[in-house]
Amino acid sequence: MAGFLCVISGPSGVGKGTIVQEIMSLRDDLELSISVTTRYKRPGEVDGKDYSFVSVADFDKMKEEKLLLEDAIVHNNKYGTPRAFVEEKIKEGKIVILEIDVQGAKQIKENFDNAVFVFVLPPRMKDIEDRLIKRGTEDENKIKLRMKNASRELESITMYDYFLLNDEIEDATRRLNKFLSDERKLRKND
Amino acid sequence: MAGFLCVISGPSGVGKGTIVQEIMSLRDDLELSISVTTRYKRPGEVDGKDYSFVSVADFDKMKEEKLLLEDAIVHNNKYGTPRAFVEEKIKEGKIVILEIDVQGAKQIKENFDNAVFVFVLPPRMKDIEDRLIKRGTEDENKIKLRMKNASRELESITMYDYFLLNDEIEDATRRLNKFLSDERKLRKND
Repeated sequence: MAGFLCVISGPSGVGKGTIVQEIMSLRDDLELSISVTTRYKRPGEVDGKDYSFVSVADFDKMKEEKLLLEDAIVHNNKYGTPRAFVEEKIKEGKIVILEIDVQGAKQIKENFDNAVFVFVLPPRMKDIEDRLIKRGTEDENKIKLRMKNASRELESITMYDYFLLNDEIEDATRRLNKFLSDERKLRKND
Repeated sequence: MAGFLCVISGPSGVGKGTIVQEIMSLRDDLELSISVTTRYKRPGEVDGKDYSFVSVADFDKMKEEKLLLEDAIVHNNKYGTPRAFVEEKIKEGKIVILEIDVQGAKQIKENFDNAVFVFVLPPRMKDIEDRLIKRGTEDENKIKLRMKNASRELESITMYDYFLLNDEIEDATRRLNKFLSDERKLRKND
């Protein structure tokens, strides 16, 4: 039985990362997609686990040869999702989890068939703002910018297959778990 | 303590109507908004309960005098939400529930301050399609059109304050109940 690719997006601050952590510890048929990047390895990071660290030349060659499902530049560093890893793990029957922004998700949709797209929502849009204010690490303008981005991310929701409300982390994880099992069933004859 | 207006939208087929029915029987501080319409009264309908039935001339006069929070034409009949009823019930401390499409909700947002906007989502977009196919009352083209409309409604989600997932009707009703209580608390000093 083949696995599939599960793309998870949602506004920054909605808690996608925690949900992904929880679901990874809940099921043994999942595999986190490992991104390739041109940025320097930070202390404690493991090549091939946290990221695959490559040179700019190698990255560009991968992109040119269409070996990346999506790519982006963040703070002058390049990041991408290698197609080979995803395809290999799917062949092994794994569900490959890829947490990515809506821009990346759009590229995946164009470049890869039969992926499942999950969008994580807060119960209340203002919750994200409240959380940022409470955290106190960003000033008013940055929070406004983040909220504008969150709203823009939300506009892309029509591209997604499943909607996941992050009210309580346990409930959200349980529902994501159900989505993944449902998809397994729907695909059992693939 | 003043009440407030709660606007509920979501793609057709998502089960908004059932949620509204359930929440109405759960709380005694709610009031359904009664629309005004120019269409003929059907057998069993009660004027001032199901709708307020008015002449086209009276409807147009209400609209001209800005006594309607929103209005629309459906199958050549005019429908609208009278401002007076909403304001009166809010003054009595009620939460006025208005189930309406995104076009109507946009008008409300322009014409009325401090309303709360709730958007009802299916856990999975395809659930709506499956439900329509199962019901068997519409042909393929009509279902396609409905899905296109559902996707278009979803695009307006950024306008809404709360997101409500209708996975299980009891859970959805419980969460809406919590939203309304939360809003009551947020507004207790109004």
